[in-house]
Amino acid sequence: MLPRVEVQPIRIAACQVSLRVGEIEQNRATAADAVTQAAGRGAKIVVLPELTPSGYIFRDAAEARSLSEPPDGPTAAQWQDLAARHDIVIVGGFSELGTDGLLYNSAMLVDPSGVRAVYRKAHLWDAEADFFTPGSEPPPVVKTSYGAVSMVICYDVEFPEWIRLPALAGAELLAVPTNWPAEPVPQGERSILTANVQVQAFANRMFIAAACRCGAERGVEWTGGSVIAGHDGYPLAGPASTTGSPGVAQPELLVADCDLNLARSKATGPRNDAHADRRPSIYS
Amino acid sequence: MLPRVEVQPIRIAACQVSLRVGEIEQNRATAADAVTQAAGRGAKIVVLPELTPSGYIFRDAAEARSLSEPPDGPTAAQWQDLAARHDIVIVGGFSELGTDGLLYNSAMLVDPSGVRAVYRKAHLWDAEADFFTPGSEPPPVVKTSYGAVSMVICYDVEFPEWIRLPALAGAELLAVPTNWPAEPVPQGERSILTANVQVQAFANRMFIAAACRCGAERGVEWTGGSVIAGHDGYPLAGPASTTGSPGVAQPELLVADCDLNLARSKATGPRNDAHADRRPSIYS
Repeated sequence: MLPRVEVQPIRIAACQVSLRVGEIEQNRATAADAVTQAAGRGAKIVVLPELTPSGYIFRDAAEARSLSEPPDGPTAAQWQDLAARHDIVIVGGFSELGTDGLLYNSAMLVDPSGVRAVYRKAHLWDAEADFFTPGSEPPPVVKTSYGAVSMVICYDVEFPEWIRLPALAGAELLAVPTNWPAEPVPQGERSILTANVQVQAFANRMFIAAACRCGAERGVEWTGGSVIAGHDGYPLAGPASTTGSPGVAQPELLVADCDLNLARSKATGPRNDAHADRRPSIYS
Repeated sequence: MLPRVEVQPIRIAACQVSLRVGEIEQNRATAADAVTQAAGRGAKIVVLPELTPSGYIFRDAAEARSLSEPPDGPTAAQWQDLAARHDIVIVGGFSELGTDGLLYNSAMLVDPSGVRAVYRKAHLWDAEADFFTPGSEPPPVVKTSYGAVSMVICYDVEFPEWIRLPALAGAELLAVPTNWPAEPVPQGERSILTANVQVQAFANRMFIAAACRCGAERGVEWTGGSVIAGHDGYPLAGPASTTGSPGVAQPELLVADCDLNLARSKATGPRNDAHADRRPSIYS
């Protein structure tokens, strides 16, 4: 483990990019471009979307399998190379071929030393269940050089009980690679998916960086609406352009300077604490 | 129990009113005016703020006690009279003098037949702990003529684990009497307290009506920002005027027509369900 860099704030990036299912080399290049651009702007932790190399809308299980790779595969090698070159941390989603032969909708955290952790999405959306096995391990909290970082994927973030686990385990930043399918957003409203990210940050006094996709894939438009929320729940960057509110999501690079030390205290007032005030004994 | 009126939508009101600590008769009159106005606009369920008759910023425990009353006290009598006159349901907060001699920050649900349920706030904010004993009973779900209604109070709604309980128990509408002390809201942003109400609705596919106060009381400004959120999380009415974003909260009556039947299904897609997709076995 590399020593923690105590100088805060550190710059965090969320990359809203356009990817295409099946175009794995092009998608890797798109991700590398986004990461390089983020590093050029000084970002030290960079978040990419869900299923970045593979794309999302698989035709069938065989296609999903053909676009999967182990956590020591070429995507990990590319991200480690980028992480080492820029001295950064990268979190992004990929279609994982497990050593058990099963596929998982996973995310990995990579730093200059390599893959530090892999997380398998625990709450599967729609047709994902046809391709992927849900994970059951809690989101890992990785002590990186820049702070304690955890990760969940897309639909996971709609389950506040799940978000509590990394928050209670000390995550200062939660990275959320996501592919939110676009849904109607009432005029003048922010997407509730973006607002949900904010509120999970607020509830846990931790930073959250959610990176979504844009563009269309086999008839599915993506929401966009990527956001970096501060520990008070308000956006420090974004929301990025969002499909339907109005217009269409576009590629965007969000960067925000985050003092992750602020996430170490859960105090919300002289006598209140977002975590200590919980009463688990009466919650079931 | 009165028979359920199956005709939906029904009109719901949230009353953002100005109250003053200690002026119990004036506060009751303010509440009665707001309820009468809401009923005149066709509302069938009317939500009032936290600690409506008493006010909030007590000087000391003796003052809090002097402004408390049992759940069969004069406020209940007044609300029952209003409920019977207009054939409505009222939910509002009051300072409860328990039969055990203790004080509780409570809310009651009143219909034409009288007090149907009392709920005691389980998560106390700041100096409340000097005056009130926290409740430990889950929010009751009351089958009213107009739908299944539950209630929590103010800070309670920041604990999603707590909100799950009435949602899982079948609440179609959650009433949230609140007194949110004003906090800075970044320019162009919606108060995170309001957004939190929306997201709790979204997470549980249920309607939530939050009624806050406005005005100042012994140096504390109230947020306002009352809202009636639909089962998709988007506001059906409000947010009401909010202190600091910019300006100051004002008295407002929010009304929205809500098809509470929509809250009976938690389906979010052909293969997803906001409640059935939970995985409690891995949440601890």
